[in-house]
Amino acid sequence: MLGLEVVLADGTVWSGLYGLRKNNTGYDLKHLFIGSEGTLGVITAATLKLHPLPTRHAVAWVGMASPEDALTLLTRVQERSAARLSAFEMINRLQLDLVIGHVPGRRSPIESEADWHVLIELSDNGSGEALDDELQAILEDAFADGLLSDAALASSEAQRHAMWEIRHSVSEANKKAGVGLTTDCAVPLSAVPAFIAAATAAVRALVPDLPVIVVAHLGDGNVHFIPFFTFDAWEAAGSGDRDALAAALRHAVNDEAARLKGTFSAEHGVGRVQLAEMARYKPPAELALMRAVKRALDPHNILNPGRLLPPG
Amino acid sequence: MLGLEVVLADGTVWSGLYGLRKNNTGYDLKHLFIGSEGTLGVITAATLKLHPLPTRHAVAWVGMASPEDALTLLTRVQERSAARLSAFEMINRLQLDLVIGHVPGRRSPIESEADWHVLIELSDNGSGEALDDELQAILEDAFADGLLSDAALASSEAQRHAMWEIRHSVSEANKKAGVGLTTDCAVPLSAVPAFIAAATAAVRALVPDLPVIVVAHLGDGNVHFIPFFTFDAWEAAGSGDRDALAAALRHAVNDEAARLKGTFSAEHGVGRVQLAEMARYKPPAELALMRAVKRALDPHNILNPGRLLPPG
Repeated sequence: MLGLEVVLADGTVWSGLYGLRKNNTGYDLKHLFIGSEGTLGVITAATLKLHPLPTRHAVAWVGMASPEDALTLLTRVQERSAARLSAFEMINRLQLDLVIGHVPGRRSPIESEADWHVLIELSDNGSGEALDDELQAILEDAFADGLLSDAALASSEAQRHAMWEIRHSVSEANKKAGVGLTTDCAVPLSAVPAFIAAATAAVRALVPDLPVIVVAHLGDGNVHFIPFFTFDAWEAAGSGDRDALAAALRHAVNDEAARLKGTFSAEHGVGRVQLAEMARYKPPAELALMRAVKRALDPHNILNPGRLLPPG
Repeated sequence: MLGLEVVLADGTVWSGLYGLRKNNTGYDLKHLFIGSEGTLGVITAATLKLHPLPTRHAVAWVGMASPEDALTLLTRVQERSAARLSAFEMINRLQLDLVIGHVPGRRSPIESEADWHVLIELSDNGSGEALDDELQAILEDAFADGLLSDAALASSEAQRHAMWEIRHSVSEANKKAGVGLTTDCAVPLSAVPAFIAAATAAVRALVPDLPVIVVAHLGDGNVHFIPFFTFDAWEAAGSGDRDALAAALRHAVNDEAARLKGTFSAEHGVGRVQLAEMARYKPPAELALMRAVKRALDPHNILNPGRLLPPG
């Protein structure tokens, strides 16, 4: 995103549609509006920097014993493939089983009974050789070091597509299979394994043996940790208590993220639904700063009131 | 930059040292403080994201007929080498001559009498083959298409170093050679050739035949366009008028950048020296926004007063 045009609270239009890669002239207003959810102004135009589409890809599906091993593998791929690493997605065994069980046509790319599954994609431009050799070399070294139990490298566009289809089917599968209480935490990369372990323990302290789904954009430290109920189990969880139970389970997860210096909303934002979380997790000094900015740019509170900032 | 710790005007400390790659919980305060030149708070700590150092490099020196050709070559390298492109620096013939003439040990890497000279660097991680073949193939295609007149690919660490030393010697050379009125413009990439032509015409309308130095980070659209006087010519330019002449020449350059939707300060910032440029080039709505933010965060104007924002 290089520039924005924004209509301000007093009707003024800020024409900030700069197409510049570098501009060091005053405050970074662009980033102030991005992610402000309409509470500081109405974005009416944007200048984007476009990149050439990648022309070469390699995709692999890998079975692993633990999130720790997945993190080690991620570090190795980053060291060797740098900017060519375009996806490093991790799901747990339950998520894979739900996709295979509930979405027609989905099959596991590997035979492995591994508890953790990782989709790795490398992408690049230019017309050189395929990236398969590069990814295969990384996986062979990892296999030799005992980091992974099984792996499949896609050898055709159809196979690449099939691997991605598993990842893209998680929402459909989870909706068909039961009730998943989605969360959207991010923690520092090195804390991801600890977060998953702690969140699992925390929700099972509330509901013993509760199944949990994990869908992580591991390269971003972004973990959708999802306490999961079959429809029967959700019915059995009581009628009037279910909203309170859902809130308690989400708080239990978000508390663990906060303890590890993480966030309760990596990509979904705040809106109205997460206002209570803003009040619960944001330091008072940070909320005060945000309120000062809001008052300065929207003194009469006419821009998307009641969103993003909890009542002060 | 992942996070900041900032002491605010009222003495509060904002502890924003998040180590997260994704965090979508309210306003982007980090970017508000970055580049604010101490006028919104005092940054006392920062969390950085570190990347592995590249392990492979290729560097070439290329002679070209025009900035248009350099831009075409840049596009080709971006399309084929994507994120491996780590530098695309352009200087004009005068700059090369000044370096060779005034800094001991510097020699031109090519025989060419080309008017424009480009240093290209590719960098990558991993342990694969050198990047020389990739860069050579791009340059051979460009040569076949008449885009470049001569090129040298560094074949050793010493040669790579020598090419970079030319680029790193421009400040020393220009200080020894005379008086250069440095500017720091950026324009949209596609407008760089038009900017150089227009700025050249504009300064020569004030001082006929004035030599100009061009040092551009072309990949960023960032052009240091430098009206240049030998010491004798600067003496001859009159005594009391020299400050006014320097200001007029810099305005002439910055006016052309503004006309092409560029900026007068791509990387050097504003401080006190460029306050007049802020007043001259920034739209009133943008200055008003910045002043509103400044008042909100520093109501008593105690943080680096007199910098960044011109008097309202």
